[in-house]
Amino acid sequence: MAPTKVGIIGLSASGWAPAAHLPYLLRSPAYEITAICNSSVASSQAAIEKYSLPSSTKAYGDPEDIAKDASVDLVVCAVRVDRHLATISPSLKAGKDVFVEWPLGASLTEARELLRLKNEGGVKRAIVGLQARQAPIIKAVKSLVRSGRVGKVLSSTWTGYAVNGGESVDQSLEHMGRREVGANLVSIHFGHAFDYVQFGYGFQTPPKTLLANRRPFVKMLDHNGRTVEEVHRKTSDDTIFLHGTLSNDSIPVSFALRGGMPFPSTPGLEWRIYGEEGEVRVTAAGIFLQIGYADMKIQVAKFGGVVEEVQVKGDEFDAEGYGLVSKNVGRIYRCLERGEREGLCGFDDAVQRHELIDEMYRENGIEV
Amino acid sequence: MAPTKVGIIGLSASGWAPAAHLPYLLRSPAYEITAICNSSVASSQAAIEKYSLPSSTKAYGDPEDIAKDASVDLVVCAVRVDRHLATISPSLKAGKDVFVEWPLGASLTEARELLRLKNEGGVKRAIVGLQARQAPIIKAVKSLVRSGRVGKVLSSTWTGYAVNGGESVDQSLEHMGRREVGANLVSIHFGHAFDYVQFGYGFQTPPKTLLANRRPFVKMLDHNGRTVEEVHRKTSDDTIFLHGTLSNDSIPVSFALRGGMPFPSTPGLEWRIYGEEGEVRVTAAGIFLQIGYADMKIQVAKFGGVVEEVQVKGDEFDAEGYGLVSKNVGRIYRCLERGEREGLCGFDDAVQRHELIDEMYRENGIEV
Repeated sequence: MAPTKVGIIGLSASGWAPAAHLPYLLRSPAYEITAICNSSVASSQAAIEKYSLPSSTKAYGDPEDIAKDASVDLVVCAVRVDRHLATISPSLKAGKDVFVEWPLGASLTEARELLRLKNEGGVKRAIVGLQARQAPIIKAVKSLVRSGRVGKVLSSTWTGYAVNGGESVDQSLEHMGRREVGANLVSIHFGHAFDYVQFGYGFQTPPKTLLANRRPFVKMLDHNGRTVEEVHRKTSDDTIFLHGTLSNDSIPVSFALRGGMPFPSTPGLEWRIYGEEGEVRVTAAGIFLQIGYADMKIQVAKFGGVVEEVQVKGDEFDAEGYGLVSKNVGRIYRCLERGEREGLCGFDDAVQRHELIDEMYRENGIEV
Repeated sequence: MAPTKVGIIGLSASGWAPAAHLPYLLRSPAYEITAICNSSVASSQAAIEKYSLPSSTKAYGDPEDIAKDASVDLVVCAVRVDRHLATISPSLKAGKDVFVEWPLGASLTEARELLRLKNEGGVKRAIVGLQARQAPIIKAVKSLVRSGRVGKVLSSTWTGYAVNGGESVDQSLEHMGRREVGANLVSIHFGHAFDYVQFGYGFQTPPKTLLANRRPFVKMLDHNGRTVEEVHRKTSDDTIFLHGTLSNDSIPVSFALRGGMPFPSTPGLEWRIYGEEGEVRVTAAGIFLQIGYADMKIQVAKFGGVVEEVQVKGDEFDAEGYGLVSKNVGRIYRCLERGEREGLCGFDDAVQRHELIDEMYRENGIEV
């Protein structure tokens, strides 16, 4: 079969796109990068050279051009969320397949508009990068729980600490402090965790939530850790508490997430799944199980029994030395090439996740 | 000054009253036990003999008799909560001082009725045994936070596991499984914890809560661990999640409590108080800080700094070898004899705590 021809919107000189998307796309014979669309043709040309892409790769500066290009089958969008709508709308209208990072839009309104455009454009595959569904650790937890090893699930408690949202902010992440950008602790940190904790189930009724911006002013640092702004205004929330019951057997779920580093020498994430006959405990350095950490661990304790550590089975992404951030994104590309739907998040599904976030804001009296 | 003459309602052959109330009452010259009122005169007489009380001690079987006895100044009530109303009403009507264990009543209605009787009777001192307020560890956490060592408080998260409410129930605690008795995980476990986590502040608006009885059937065991009933019906809740903001500076507070033992080798309680400049971490084998544990610990981490353990200063109760359960109850008696009000819970205050519990039930569609 001919490789899928990929056009990437937003292949920066560093950051997420090259680290997470390029490794599998460059190695897999199932994909061929045929176009890059950055903020200017010159910037796209620079990326083509930097990543040694073939000289035939098209360099665009306007999302309309990638939408018109017949040599692009799949548009990958890795720009900041507040530019998703503008950059992928033309491709959706042109009926092209799209793989866009989570969150889908900067707001529920934008996410719904993108879903509408996708449906109108008759797009066959439009997916959103909630890649925790591909993470072997999540699959292992899921299968462990479904195997009945801890009996019927009675509750799930999730406590996590984010590196972001603490006493200072790196200049390159300044936008995460502006609620209206839509890329913050609520949409990204909570959004990804919420997706994997739910195990694919929704909530019976909207969960009850508490959002607070407890550090409205933070210190802004440059990449060398030097202060560039002593008192920088932040409008996004750094404290997110939630509880609700899953539509799957009314399982009570509790979340407590705060910005800032965890207490020294304690896990950045502690996730318990308590069952009639035992408990699962997942710990990691942080909450991003959708990416993963070197030290993450699944333990199971049966009542009155010993604690066992559960080994997560590796696959070719582990064997072939992919970096952490590229593994689960790579696994999404592999699903796409195999035509698998399980473990992929469509636009409908993403809109439902946006609806919860919107509901959280409204419940807390926040206008977005 | 003449000692305060104490009448005890409910001095059982074992359990809470002899372990928690007797030690200080017997050692302190400020108190003299003059009467016992158990379910029968014979049972009171047996207790008087068992605990070697003076032969002059009155033995009663009817709460009306203790209410009428002019040689009783202070009535101590340590019977099961669903008998508080019946056993202390006569003494309140007679205007006697009362020290009754928490919860005040089996329901909000009962608690309000007791407050009304106390006011009508013109009772000078009517207090409720929420003794966490006397616990040195709580005072140490409070003074640590108030000293500003971690800066302005940004949030507090409390995660705890109860020994009760798990896969089996001891026959002697069977009543804790019946919601209508009013002595259960919501009123006792959550009630005490809620009191110390609040630090004496109320919630700005009613907190949002989730209650669930996830083990409606449990195994009942005798005191030798033998099964006496394979499938015993339980109506009280074993899963309690809450979040809200304290009236003190809008501090977001998250609680997650579930019945049953903690995951092996992890603390039964983990309480974090996160501040602008650092974090306090309190850990213990269980959640009953109002009683305490041998291994409980307060740690403080300043950002970028080392973790320090905070030593809790001992007092004469520690020096004089009181048992854990008698220390904070003893400290309440010491407050009473010194005429101190700080750290004592009055009936008004207790009714407010009952109001929250009632609100929790209503919020979760539970009739009590």
